[in-house]
Amino acid sequence: MTDTERNAEQLRAQPGDPRGIQTMRAMDNFRIAGRPVRTELVRAYALVKKACARVNGELGFLGADRAAAIEAVCDEIAEGTHDRWFTVDALQGGAGTSTNMNVNEVIAHLASARLGQAGSVEPLRDVNLHQSTNDTYPTALKLCAALRLAQAAKAAEALQGAYQKKETEFASIVAVGRTEMQSAVPMTLGAIFSSFAEAAGRDRWRIFKCEERIRTVNLGGTAVGTGLAAPRDYIFRATDELRRISGVRLARGENLVDQTANADAFAEVAGILSAFAANLEKQASDIRFLSHTGEIRLPALQAGSSIMPGKINPVVCEAVIQAGMKARSLCALVAEAASRGTLQINEFLPLIADSLLEAIDLAERSAEALAAHVALIAANPSVCAELVRRDRMIVTAFLPDLGYAAAEKLLAEFDAARETDGALEIRSFLESRLGAEAVKQKISPSSLSELGYRRNQ
Amino acid sequence: MTDTERNAEQLRAQPGDPRGIQTMRAMDNFRIAGRPVRTELVRAYALVKKACARVNGELGFLGADRAAAIEAVCDEIAEGTHDRWFTVDALQGGAGTSTNMNVNEVIAHLASARLGQAGSVEPLRDVNLHQSTNDTYPTALKLCAALRLAQAAKAAEALQGAYQKKETEFASIVAVGRTEMQSAVPMTLGAIFSSFAEAAGRDRWRIFKCEERIRTVNLGGTAVGTGLAAPRDYIFRATDELRRISGVRLARGENLVDQTANADAFAEVAGILSAFAANLEKQASDIRFLSHTGEIRLPALQAGSSIMPGKINPVVCEAVIQAGMKARSLCALVAEAASRGTLQINEFLPLIADSLLEAIDLAERSAEALAAHVALIAANPSVCAELVRRDRMIVTAFLPDLGYAAAEKLLAEFDAARETDGALEIRSFLESRLGAEAVKQKISPSSLSELGYRRNQ
Amino acid sequence: MTDTERNAEQLRAQPGDPRGIQTMRAMDNFRIAGRPVRTELVRAYALVKKACARVNGELGFLGADRAAAIEAVCDEIAEGTHDRWFTVDALQGGAGTSTNMNVNEVIAHLASARLGQAGSVEPLRDVNLHQSTNDTYPTALKLCAALRLAQAAKAAEALQGAYQKKETEFASIVAVGRTEMQSAVPMTLGAIFSSFAEAAGRDRWRIFKCEERIRTVNLGGTAVGTGLAAPRDYIFRATDELRRISGVRLARGENLVDQTANADAFAEVAGILSAFAANLEKQASDIRFLSHTGEIRLPALQAGSSIMPGKINPVVCEAVIQAGMKARSLCALVAEAASRGTLQINEFLPLIADSLLEAIDLAERSAEALAAHVALIAANPSVCAELVRRDRMIVTAFLPDLGYAAAEKLLAEFDAARETDGALEIRSFLESRLGAEAVKQKISPSSLSELGYRRNQ
Amino acid sequence: MTDTERNAEQLRAQPGDPRGIQTMRAMDNFRIAGRPVRTELVRAYALVKKACARVNGELGFLGADRAAAIEAVCDEIAEGTHDRWFTVDALQGGAGTSTNMNVNEVIAHLASARLGQAGSVEPLRDVNLHQSTNDTYPTALKLCAALRLAQAAKAAEALQGAYQKKETEFASIVAVGRTEMQSAVPMTLGAIFSSFAEAAGRDRWRIFKCEERIRTVNLGGTAVGTGLAAPRDYIFRATDELRRISGVRLARGENLVDQTANADAFAEVAGILSAFAANLEKQASDIRFLSHTGEIRLPALQAGSSIMPGKINPVVCEAVIQAGMKARSLCALVAEAASRGTLQINEFLPLIADSLLEAIDLAERSAEALAAHVALIAANPSVCAELVRRDRMIVTAFLPDLGYAAAEKLLAEFDAARETDGALEIRSFLESRLGAEAVKQKISPSSLSELGYRRNQ
Repeated sequence: MTDTERNAEQLRAQPGDPRGIQTMRAMDNFRIAGRPVRTELVRAYALVKKACARVNGELGFLGADRAAAIEAVCDEIAEGTHDRWFTVDALQGGAGTSTNMNVNEVIAHLASARLGQAGSVEPLRDVNLHQSTNDTYPTALKLCAALRLAQAAKAAEALQGAYQKKETEFASIVAVGRTEMQSAVPMTLGAIFSSFAEAAGRDRWRIFKCEERIRTVNLGGTAVGTGLAAPRDYIFRATDELRRISGVRLARGENLVDQTANADAFAEVAGILSAFAANLEKQASDIRFLSHTGEIRLPALQAGSSIMPGKINPVVCEAVIQAGMKARSLCALVAEAASRGTLQINEFLPLIADSLLEAIDLAERSAEALAAHVALIAANPSVCAELVRRDRMIVTAFLPDLGYAAAEKLLAEFDAARETDGALEIRSFLESRLGAEAVKQKISPSSLSELGYRRNQ
Repeated sequence: MTDTERNAEQLRAQPGDPRGIQTMRAMDNFRIAGRPVRTELVRAYALVKKACARVNGELGFLGADRAAAIEAVCDEIAEGTHDRWFTVDALQGGAGTSTNMNVNEVIAHLASARLGQAGSVEPLRDVNLHQSTNDTYPTALKLCAALRLAQAAKAAEALQGAYQKKETEFASIVAVGRTEMQSAVPMTLGAIFSSFAEAAGRDRWRIFKCEERIRTVNLGGTAVGTGLAAPRDYIFRATDELRRISGVRLARGENLVDQTANADAFAEVAGILSAFAANLEKQASDIRFLSHTGEIRLPALQAGSSIMPGKINPVVCEAVIQAGMKARSLCALVAEAASRGTLQINEFLPLIADSLLEAIDLAERSAEALAAHVALIAANPSVCAELVRRDRMIVTAFLPDLGYAAAEKLLAEFDAARETDGALEIRSFLESRLGAEAVKQKISPSSLSELGYRRNQ
Repeated sequence: MTDTERNAEQLRAQPGDPRGIQTMRAMDNFRIAGRPVRTELVRAYALVKKACARVNGELGFLGADRAAAIEAVCDEIAEGTHDRWFTVDALQGGAGTSTNMNVNEVIAHLASARLGQAGSVEPLRDVNLHQSTNDTYPTALKLCAALRLAQAAKAAEALQGAYQKKETEFASIVAVGRTEMQSAVPMTLGAIFSSFAEAAGRDRWRIFKCEERIRTVNLGGTAVGTGLAAPRDYIFRATDELRRISGVRLARGENLVDQTANADAFAEVAGILSAFAANLEKQASDIRFLSHTGEIRLPALQAGSSIMPGKINPVVCEAVIQAGMKARSLCALVAEAASRGTLQINEFLPLIADSLLEAIDLAERSAEALAAHVALIAANPSVCAELVRRDRMIVTAFLPDLGYAAAEKLLAEFDAARETDGALEIRSFLESRLGAEAVKQKISPSSLSELGYRRNQ
Repeated sequence: MTDTERNAEQLRAQPGDPRGIQTMRAMDNFRIAGRPVRTELVRAYALVKKACARVNGELGFLGADRAAAIEAVCDEIAEGTHDRWFTVDALQGGAGTSTNMNVNEVIAHLASARLGQAGSVEPLRDVNLHQSTNDTYPTALKLCAALRLAQAAKAAEALQGAYQKKETEFASIVAVGRTEMQSAVPMTLGAIFSSFAEAAGRDRWRIFKCEERIRTVNLGGTAVGTGLAAPRDYIFRATDELRRISGVRLARGENLVDQTANADAFAEVAGILSAFAANLEKQASDIRFLSHTGEIRLPALQAGSSIMPGKINPVVCEAVIQAGMKARSLCALVAEAASRGTLQINEFLPLIADSLLEAIDLAERSAEALAAHVALIAANPSVCAELVRRDRMIVTAFLPDLGYAAAEKLLAEFDAARETDGALEIRSFLESRLGAEAVKQKISPSSLSELGYRRNQ
């Protein structure tokens, strides 16, 4: 009896610990990430096991009582009841075999307990029946990612909603439009928030549509996608059953060898997620900038400094930017891991799973945090107005009437006039030259919100 | 007169140099990448300029003769006639303004020459009329990317075709399936190539569909997307005209402020492209591996070594793997640059353009190179057969009949038998135990190509 | 009373919870990573707080009893006694202010309890006296990283030792050298492991030397490095005290404004760490490859498959490769975060801290796991010998005698001879042509281990 | 005769084309990057070839006339005379073999021409004598990188000098210190530039010291580092000769098998270079920010906009930020390529070479561009003073006198007073409360430049 086996024995001696020898060995072998596999993956895995048990039961490969016991335990795992028993390291080698065995062992132990007879349900013979890590693991990951992406899409939708409210709220506030951190042309603050809203709307849609890219699974393909050692009628039913159980529109791949060998679907989803992360960073950066100029006011969430009294910092924006950076980094890692798979499977699926699911988490939580934050943003109309009054670039609004050359000349005259009157603002200068009403009309929210100018009006 | 202006004068003195002062200044200011903007971007930019000139001409903003001259020059640029005059550094600052000015100046000079009067067409007044870098540059980039992606999709299609031919050619060759670089279960060599073909097919589709993500443009939005200084009737026609001219299904964005401010569409396309690159790397690695084992023979393209006679190396595979790594790296860079835009525009569009277009190039060329290479791959049936005969894992094929425990026992017996007869192969051992016909049937291409086993036969 | 305050009250009502309102607010504000700041950072932070309290006490800024109480609590925190109270999210915004406040509050509460009077030690007035997040946080991170890197260097050393043992053990086993996955020239298996040992030795050294790059700290610089609001004598003593307490050779920066503003030291250390990670991946990949060819045998750690009996997979190698990929990804993220700091501080230090410390962890654990694994590797001399006997490239060893052209001719003759005798091995062919003794001498371990050939011997 | 051979014949028919059949084949095989190997690498390669020819000549392996002819040609190549003939694709497969052969062929042809007899010097027999791609290529790359890094260090030094001038120039200008984009405490503008100068100084040093990490070469190791087919006396002299010729302190590795197999030195240098790139981005971003606030004025290098008159943009800063992002990306790519090497060599050295050398270029050019730009930066003292007068955070300067609580109270009073007098500035408010002289003293450049406050004064 090896040490590991002894440890396993001792562990089993603790009442209620359903983990078995393969789990113990894997815990010994993999002390890499220092944290276990993500819970949501295990819960999704339980749904896969449930579907397989049900089909095996219905086809007579598995006794009805064992099938029922397995299914019941799977429901509990899927609800999170047994999260604490899934303890194999997140960055395990072996393409996920250890997680599969951990799941098999826990289910077997708990199902046996349900049947009142220790060992009556076996991890490999029963729970893993007609399965391989190589088909169940990617299937569980796809299912899990689909469920999580649906939630992330909702967070993007909430963020879009928060922006849209501000778009309306700020629709009549004229502010300085900026390009390259320099003031450009006047526009409404609402329009600036509309650009955030549109991007969040695209994010919602692109994340929502990711399901299509991962709904094709290889369940039934067993070791290399040929279905070796699995009966055909089981293969033809397993995915359908999983679709019913999970509510996710899964489909069996046409070519399971392909679906078993390639991880490009994960790389693609990660790539699309990168765009969401980039948007979150961009929006948080812009909001931080507008808070710096004073055009908007962020809610004061906490003391900004341990030394500077009264300092309020854009801490949520900074958290979101960090989360976005990290999410993009994880997404690129998913693509790298996908590129390094070998022949019939991708042996780095545990890294792909861990990275993709963390990236989804980060995007979702950032979007939620930002949505809540945006809801509390207030405009500072007097600062907006002051900055517009002093912004030389507002002369651009008169280009259609003046032309480029006359506009340049006007600016030169303003600069000269300002030499003698340092307090002169461009807006009042323009009013003196072009008429107060004309200026007011040009810099009005309605004028600035129209697309282009109308001729002959 | 500054040095730059003097240089510009001197340069203009050279007959036929159509570049102007803004181009010269930009060449002075930006010595960063050490190479000019990519040619394909400039060519697409000319199509944008042509569309604007035509609409401006039709609406009477631009005289018919100047409009016609501009359009004619744009056609020449789009065909590559004037590539050598677009000399601003690829990593220029200024969000692309210098490239826009380079294009404006060259067009103005050449169009003036067509009209027979130097200076009759002006860069800003005429060629850039109703335009800003901030709408024309991203529009040109989207158009360019769409055209290039269409070609990359064709390369993926060619690669898919090359794999499909080998899938058929190798359909009856049984080989060792491998997981984690260890032999797993037998399968046909054709099935292995089918997994490549399917992935390439997905790549074709995902790249082809990228057009949808970048077909919405902000032409007419001018500086910040409000269309400031552009007439509304021009805005409403410019994109339609560009669609007609280019043949790409472009559409004007609903919210041009958004389309001007956000670069997420490029990040998304780059993310999707990453999956293509990852697949290319994976396939090239696998082909290299199968060449290492000898199961396939690569064409001998060149002497493999300057010191080792007769060495043939998988050089095309290695080139493709490198291209894939670099393409993924560029794609991640696009997402980073997208995340760092500020407020009303993304000032890092030149980096985005350079990186995205290079990544598309690398993917396309790699796919083409790999397709040509794959077409010359030959199987080595005797090596395949030998490796299968010696592969202990073929016992897995008998799992449905034997069960896991009996299979393990059989393997143990084989190991014992081999102790005495070192030359004993697993296949002959299994034949002796299970019957030659049964083994032949189980390890036959047709049996291995069926999905799962049929019961009761 | 806000909800947060109410929650804080309730929480305080729980006996012994030393967290205060700032911690509570931060926990509300930051639900991003979903896990708290890394424990090792908090422990190092406690050493910083201890040093400051001691100097403040010695200089009379802080009463002796309060200073002593703070120091005692800091010791406990540094030992890990209070890990559970540091609960602010790892990816918090605010440049680490919330972690600083969490530390301040816990210390204040526990020190007050030691003094027997709630509130007698205050978080800001006492624990944070003369400090800012902006000097204590980067100081704590540098201290923490230095301590962790020292341990990682030890893991590299252990790995080097493991390789060196195998280098000796395999010194007389001739094996196939391979380039580009093709056999190249014969060499000893020991030499192959010597290349791993040398790389691990460099890793040990480069990680060990990283301390120099992060030993300069900005303690005393307070908010922006000018030491504003801190007395000069305190500033001049704080770092010395921390050096004494921690045993790490810390030094006060010459220019604390610089040290406060710039995070390049972390980027540099991360960059160097990348090389370590790359080496680990390379070695694990090579070992996996040699296990695939059968030239070495990996220890069988766990069942390799849930479906294939008897399969042993290179699971530790795969875990290490994954860890290396992730570590490199984190290191690149550190550099990105360093690049995005703004003016007087780097507001993304929490991301830098989390990423750098995780990368160090991954490298250390991977090196440890690989060292333990390597110790159990056995050579398979018969496979090595067989592969050498059959490797056409061994002819290269005779190049000095034969010349390139004659060597090529000999290979052609061998190929012809093999047409008629398929079992002919290159080694026996060469023996028949060049003499058995000559072949034996050339392919001997001693001959292959000499650098180059000796003339005229 | 194949097409390639025919093409080669035709090409040879063109007078003076020194490329041979291996170059032609490689050009056919590799159409990946679409651009040739970097010129600086080829020039360094010529120095390696020269050193080998000289030693081979001195030891009598190569006739004196042929050696002399080879050396003369190598000198020309090293000076750039023949750049146009090195035409193999930058991302070639084959670990650099094709570049080596391109170099061999060009040298052989040109040396033969010198000797007046076509074919008298042969590419493999003479130019490549006792060499392999696997030792000459990494040696050339290390030599090239060392030379390029020395120049990049000089650019960092120039940048440091430019910052130091501004540090002195701006030493007496008080400005707002900012953390997290919010005003923090007052400091001198000179101090802000001093932080840039220090970082650039570290960059100079870290880049300068990189030479140590790549000075150990494997020249003489031939195919796998055992020196197979090379005479020992040649091996012992080749590196010394290269050191003499190049002036770079190269050393022969103790273990050439290691030096041939591992590319970690490149990963390490790339990692260190990342820190330089990150600093450049950080500085350019900060300068851009200070230009946005108006505290400094950037030189107006070019028209900022094609539509907005009078707009000046921070275009050089933006170019530098882009270059930094790309350089970091390339550096991470070097580490990835290093991690993916296989056994006795790293087959992805061409990617490593291309990426590392481009990253060095980008860092060097960016530093040069930024140095020239910084030299033209002017402070805007009136804006600095105005922002300080209005910055509530200047109250922090009085913390030592007032304490945190009183400072907070004072701020509250100011806020109340400002309710009635919107034009009230914090500075005049503080003067009214604390005395004009006290405020003047606290906010003086000398006071703000001292580290901490002195007690008892």
